Amino acid sequence: MIGCSGSADRLTTPALVVDRALLIGNMVALANLAKRSGLRLWPHAKTHKSSELALLQLNHGAEGISVASVHEAEVLAHAGIRNILITSPVIGTDKIRRLVRLTSLAERLNVVVDNLSNVTELAEASVSAGCSRRLGVLVDVDIGMGRTGVTEVHQVVPLARAISSFSPLEFRGLQGYSGIVQHIQAYSDRRRAYLGQLDLLGKCVQALREAGFQVEMVTGGGTGSLGLDIESGILTDHQAGSYIFMDLQYRNVEIFEGQDHQAFQNSLSVRGSVVSANATGRVTIDCGSKAIAIDGPIPEVKDPLSACSYEYYGDEHGRVSFDDQEVRLAGSTVELWPPHCDPTVNLHDHLHVVSGNVLCGIWRIDARGVL
Amino acid sequence: MIGCSGSADRLTTPALVVDRALLIGNMVALANLAKRSGLRLWPHAKTHKSSELALLQLNHGAEGISVASVHEAEVLAHAGIRNILITSPVIGTDKIRRLVRLTSLAERLNVVVDNLSNVTELAEASVSAGCSRRLGVLVDVDIGMGRTGVTEVHQVVPLARAISSFSPLEFRGLQGYSGIVQHIQAYSDRRRAYLGQLDLLGKCVQALREAGFQVEMVTGGGTGSLGLDIESGILTDHQAGSYIFMDLQYRNVEIFEGQDHQAFQNSLSVRGSVVSANATGRVTIDCGSKAIAIDGPIPEVKDPLSACSYEYYGDEHGRVSFDDQEVRLAGSTVELWPPHCDPTVNLHDHLHVVSGNVLCGIWRIDARGVL
Repeated sequence: MIGCSGSADRLTTPALVVDRALLIGNMVALANLAKRSGLRLWPHAKTHKSSELALLQLNHGAEGISVASVHEAEVLAHAGIRNILITSPVIGTDKIRRLVRLTSLAERLNVVVDNLSNVTELAEASVSAGCSRRLGVLVDVDIGMGRTGVTEVHQVVPLARAISSFSPLEFRGLQGYSGIVQHIQAYSDRRRAYLGQLDLLGKCVQALREAGFQVEMVTGGGTGSLGLDIESGILTDHQAGSYIFMDLQYRNVEIFEGQDHQAFQNSLSVRGSVVSANATGRVTIDCGSKAIAIDGPIPEVKDPLSACSYEYYGDEHGRVSFDDQEVRLAGSTVELWPPHCDPTVNLHDHLHVVSGNVLCGIWRIDARGVL
Repeated sequence: MIGCSGSADRLTTPALVVDRALLIGNMVALANLAKRSGLRLWPHAKTHKSSELALLQLNHGAEGISVASVHEAEVLAHAGIRNILITSPVIGTDKIRRLVRLTSLAERLNVVVDNLSNVTELAEASVSAGCSRRLGVLVDVDIGMGRTGVTEVHQVVPLARAISSFSPLEFRGLQGYSGIVQHIQAYSDRRRAYLGQLDLLGKCVQALREAGFQVEMVTGGGTGSLGLDIESGILTDHQAGSYIFMDLQYRNVEIFEGQDHQAFQNSLSVRGSVVSANATGRVTIDCGSKAIAIDGPIPEVKDPLSACSYEYYGDEHGRVSFDDQEVRLAGSTVELWPPHCDPTVNLHDHLHVVSGNVLCGIWRIDARGVL
C-alpha cells in the first residue's frame, strides 16, 4: 500500500498521522535556527519514541538524541544511534546495570545525576560491568521546576569532583530543564518566569569554571523556551522535542518575540471514522481517550470539517457535532488536532507518514511501553 | 524470577501490578452473583486487553468475552477464545472483511449494528469471504447514552428482519449499554437514572417477541449497574469489565443497594520508584501520566505510605509529598491506586501478577494498541 496514490485515504482508524512535508519543514526550521545561534541540537525522543524519527533528526542537524529513560536509550542505541542523553536520573540496580552496559553500543552515552550516592552507584556498576568506554555524566540542576536536580549552586562543584574522581565516568556538564515555563503563551511572561532560572544555571557554570572544570555541555530547553534559550546564550545544547509535531497546547505559544507566524507547523493529527450516525447534528467516531490524549484543550476538528466540534465520549469514542444540517458524515473519516503530542503518540504503536493522498511510510513507535 | 521469594519486590518500575488473590476473588464473586441471578457473563476485555486474563475469566464462570474492536476480537480468537461479542458497530470495508474472516476461528462471534446499510455490508462481506459459519448480529439500542444504537423501539424489528433475511447472518438479540450511569455513586440515584433506560430495552425485547423473533441475548451492563441489572431482570447477558481490577472511580460506587462492604476489591496498582529526593517533605517518582491515567481523581498512595499524597508531575514523573519529616523515601518504591483502570492498563504492555512478595506471572496486555 505504501507509495500508492490514494493509500493515505485508506488507513485503518484510529490512526496517528503525520504530514511528511510539515515534519521535515519543522526539522529544517530548527536546524537553521541552531546554525544561526550556535546551539547544538539533542531533540527529545520522549515526544515521538520512534527510532526512525530520531535517525531523521540526526540527518537534519541534530548532534544527538535526548531520551527520558534507559528503555528509550536501549531502543535508540540498538537502532544505531550513538549520541544519547538520558535526561532523568537513572535509579536502581537493574536500570543502572542496563545503563552502563549500553556504553558498549552507544559511543557517547550521557546521563544526569543529582546526588552523590547515584554517582557512586554508576561508577561501581561501570567497574563491575568492565566497561571499556566511559559514561558521560552531567549534573542536573533544578532551575525552578522542583522535580529533579540539585537546588543550590554550591552543590554543583562537589558533584562534578566526585564524577571526575571515578575513571569510568566523565564529567560532561550541566542540565537545567524547566518544563513549567514551556507553555506560557506570551513571550514576555515566559521571559519574566524563565530568565532568573537560567541565571541560576549560568552561576553553576561559572562556579564550575572557577573550580577548573571544563563544561562541555549546558543542556536543557524545550520547544516553548527556544527563543529565550537563544536570547540568553547560556545553553550550549538544546532538547526541544515537540517542535516536530506541535499540538494545540503549543499552537498559541509565542516561541519567538513578536513572531507574526508560527515557527513550526502542526504536523500531527489523529484520524477517526464515523461508527454511528443515527442522531441529527452529530455522529460518533472511533476516537476516544485511548486514541488522543485528554491532558489539554479539547481536540479540534481539522479542515475541511473544522466547523464541526469534537468531544470525548469514552475510552474508544468521540462525538463530532455540527450545526449545518447539510453535513453528511456517515461513512466519513474525521481528522483531529491533538491537544498534547507526547501522550497522544504514547497511545499508538505506529505513525503513518503521509504526503497528500499517498502513504509514504509506517514507522513503529518502537520505544513506547516500558518508560 | 517468576515464583521466587522476594521477586515481587524487584520489578522494574513503573510497573502495573495486580494482586492475584484479589483478582481471583473478584472473578469468583461475580461468578457466584451470576449463578444466583441467572445472568450469563460476557466480561468486557476492553478493561484488561489481555488474552490470559480473558481465559481466566472463562475458567471462572464466563460464557464469552466482550470486546470493543475487531483488533481485540482477533487477539482473543487467536488465543483460543470462541465466544466473542464486539460491542461497537464495525464500520469500513477493511474492518468488516477482518470481522467476517474471524468467524472461521471464533465459533460464536457476535457483533452489534445500528443501521440497515451496515447489515447489508456484513452480509455481502460474509458471502464474498465464503464464510461457512454464521456471524451473530445484535441490534444495538441507544438506551440513553447517545453514542451508538437505534433510538426508537420501532426501529428494532425492521433491523432484526433485515438481519434474518441474510443467510450468513444470525439475529441473536439486543444490546443496550449505558456507560453514563456506571459511576453514579448512590444506588438510589443510579436507579432513578437507569431503570427508565432499561425499560426502553424491555420494550424493544417485547416488540421483537411480538413480531415472532427469538431474543437469545439481551446484553449490556457494567460494573456499576450490576445491582440494578440483576434487580430489573431485563438483561440475560452481562458485560461488566472493571470488577476484576476496580479503581478509585469505582471504589465509592454503591454497586448493590445498602451494601456495607465492597462487592469487589481493588486489585490493581501502579508501582513507581523514587528518582530524586533532594527536597524536604517530597520526592519525585517515575510515575507520571504515561504510567497512570489522569481521567479521574488523583491517584492515592497505598499502604504503608498512605499518609503520603501523590500529584502528577509531567508525563514521566509524579511527586509524593509527606508531612512526617521522619519518612525516608530515597531508594524506595511507592505503590499507587489508579483513578481509572481501563486507560491505565492501556498505557502498559505487561501486567505483573503478584502474591505477597512472589511474582506469579507476567501477562502481556496483548490486545493493546490498534483500537
